[in-house]
Amino acid sequence: MKRNIIVGQSGGPTSVINGSLYGVVTEALKHPQEIERIYGMENGIEGFLRDRVMDMKELEESGELEYVRTTPGAYLGSCRYKLPENLEDDVYQILFQKLETYNIGYFFYIGGNDSMDTVSKLSRYAKKCGSDIRFIGIPKTIDNDLVHTDHTPGFGSAAKYVATTVREIAMDAATYDTKQSVTIVEIMGRHAGWLTASCILARQFEGDNPVLVYVPEVSFCPDTFINQVKEEMRKVSNLVVCISEGIHDENGTFICEYGNNVGTDTFGHKMLTGAGKYLENLVKEKLNVKVRSIELNVCQRCSSAHLSRVDLDEAVNAGVYAVYVALEGETGKMISFVRKKNTPYELSYETADVNQICNQEKGLPKEWIAENQADIRGSFIEYVRPLTQGLVELPTKNGIPVFAYRRR
Amino acid sequence: MKRNIIVGQSGGPTSVINGSLYGVVTEALKHPQEIERIYGMENGIEGFLRDRVMDMKELEESGELEYVRTTPGAYLGSCRYKLPENLEDDVYQILFQKLETYNIGYFFYIGGNDSMDTVSKLSRYAKKCGSDIRFIGIPKTIDNDLVHTDHTPGFGSAAKYVATTVREIAMDAATYDTKQSVTIVEIMGRHAGWLTASCILARQFEGDNPVLVYVPEVSFCPDTFINQVKEEMRKVSNLVVCISEGIHDENGTFICEYGNNVGTDTFGHKMLTGAGKYLENLVKEKLNVKVRSIELNVCQRCSSAHLSRVDLDEAVNAGVYAVYVALEGETGKMISFVRKKNTPYELSYETADVNQICNQEKGLPKEWIAENQADIRGSFIEYVRPLTQGLVELPTKNGIPVFAYRRR
Repeated sequence: MKRNIIVGQSGGPTSVINGSLYGVVTEALKHPQEIERIYGMENGIEGFLRDRVMDMKELEESGELEYVRTTPGAYLGSCRYKLPENLEDDVYQILFQKLETYNIGYFFYIGGNDSMDTVSKLSRYAKKCGSDIRFIGIPKTIDNDLVHTDHTPGFGSAAKYVATTVREIAMDAATYDTKQSVTIVEIMGRHAGWLTASCILARQFEGDNPVLVYVPEVSFCPDTFINQVKEEMRKVSNLVVCISEGIHDENGTFICEYGNNVGTDTFGHKMLTGAGKYLENLVKEKLNVKVRSIELNVCQRCSSAHLSRVDLDEAVNAGVYAVYVALEGETGKMISFVRKKNTPYELSYETADVNQICNQEKGLPKEWIAENQADIRGSFIEYVRPLTQGLVELPTKNGIPVFAYRRR
Repeated sequence: MKRNIIVGQSGGPTSVINGSLYGVVTEALKHPQEIERIYGMENGIEGFLRDRVMDMKELEESGELEYVRTTPGAYLGSCRYKLPENLEDDVYQILFQKLETYNIGYFFYIGGNDSMDTVSKLSRYAKKCGSDIRFIGIPKTIDNDLVHTDHTPGFGSAAKYVATTVREIAMDAATYDTKQSVTIVEIMGRHAGWLTASCILARQFEGDNPVLVYVPEVSFCPDTFINQVKEEMRKVSNLVVCISEGIHDENGTFICEYGNNVGTDTFGHKMLTGAGKYLENLVKEKLNVKVRSIELNVCQRCSSAHLSRVDLDEAVNAGVYAVYVALEGETGKMISFVRKKNTPYELSYETADVNQICNQEKGLPKEWIAENQADIRGSFIEYVRPLTQGLVELPTKNGIPVFAYRRR
């Protein structure tokens, strides 16, 4: 008997999360013997609970699917919805009734830690109630913090964005080299420093910018930071410093929270800012030099100009492989990347037990953090560089990229 | 008798200011009968006063010149140095003695308003003292605020960056479309709204993001702004708003200055922020919705991935034409762009009296600002779109662009 498939996206978007969606849909289309309909859930499990589903075959027929491949942001819409810990909760029964109604045989969820938690719970509930629906997770996060996989789709493109942009910022900062300046670049990463660490790809020679790099795997001390900046300014007149948004002091207080202790303005409004802005003001006050902070913000997770071909191809392949293993009978698994070689770069697609992945975080290993805790060791480059390679040609119209857009 | 040429860069960098430098040097190399040596002044007139000059022929011989063409930031370094109003000041005599020492016959300065002021003063001093050195200005500014030229090199690439990035931000913002959100994008432009206005290139259909656009040519009222946001949120769940950094109230007070009235934090540090961050906090307080502000910051003037081929070609040609007119005997002129046609786009390179350009600013004409002062009229697109067209292939190494870098 033919069954239908459903695919959803969850958590923060990346530049290639739609690549995985494209992979799932195109592979499913190749199996008309086993798969009847291909549903997309709008805004993940949250939308599915409200029957917000769309027919993905229509997307293929209209020609829109090709644009989905290179569109940033989650095409289907995302959610941050946590299923209850207690599998006896009514919501599971409701969900499985809906899955039966739609005659779903295969369920694919593209996301990070929290999304793998959803896959874990649903697959455990299926086992408990004897359902044969197969649940497969497809990894996605620019944070690169999932365990049991060499890396995650989305990280490579974000790392390429960070490397290129930090290099450009360093060129810009060097413009007024007769005057000393400090530029602080704030990079995404609340708990994991993988993306911030990637900024060292921008460095062209020893002592080149970015000179100082701070990740959240070690604690951050504002006084030490000021001393390190002061010290490096003796050697480099236009210093570029990269920090993770999630740097915190030894008590675990985020540096961005320091900035939130400011008072209100004359209109009674309270100002909230990030770690970079806080440190900008600190450097200005302590060292009295020209200083600027730049928060790379969402651009690092949605830039299509900096797509890494390796990353996009792997994201698509993860979707393709998910359909393959589901049809083979696997469930409760996440697609996992196993690196075979660096030169030339070779990757193997495998599966890992989703229960061992969800709700865990993989930080940047300590051996890649320099002894002074203010730099990343060169050996990290061998790990990250292959993931940032290759260009992706984008469809454009009137000079700007054409993206797939689901009218709401 | 053969003479030497000297070229310098001044003011804020752009993605294509080095394109003009490349144009000057490559054209000068084609005239060995008239031109002996090609000097570059490091950090503009300020560096020249300290004899900081380099031989640009070496750059060609080492193969580095080709990389200069697509390198962001000012390769030669820049300065913000204003020559005295009084032409009797000693500095003029010192400068002209230096120019004689270096046997300079032709002087090229790539920059914005202030740089054209330098060209104006030097050419007037030359006339006064009977010097036959020719002074030519080459326009450059992402602000597009120079008079007597259709547009300026640097603007097209920055506009393309803004259009593409705002489109990507809109895709990212739509990810959680079940929840209302406001995203405020702060774009460069202290007094002129050209670059901010370019964000409407990101709009794909009527009512699409960015829905609200605020430029500094009209005054900004925070209360009206809050009402307009509230009104538009009834129609669009994930609203994107673009503002110029230089928006100001009817008294001329910059909105970014509002944010500077906040108190100090618990450590006694004062926080300074921009207009976007201020409005983010305002929207959060007044409307209690999810809100984020994104300052595009220096990325909009140094992104090589978003280079417009039209813009880069025009920047190079402006440098080429400057050498041509100088050899023809012109002085006290700025290279000026005259648009002949939009379809197909045709441009003519001419010259304009530099004295009529310096110290003036060309704002966005009122007829392109919508009646509600919170949007840009579609007719502006015909003006800006041709300037953003075409891709530039960049030299890359290990996946990131290769830039020319002057070791300091």
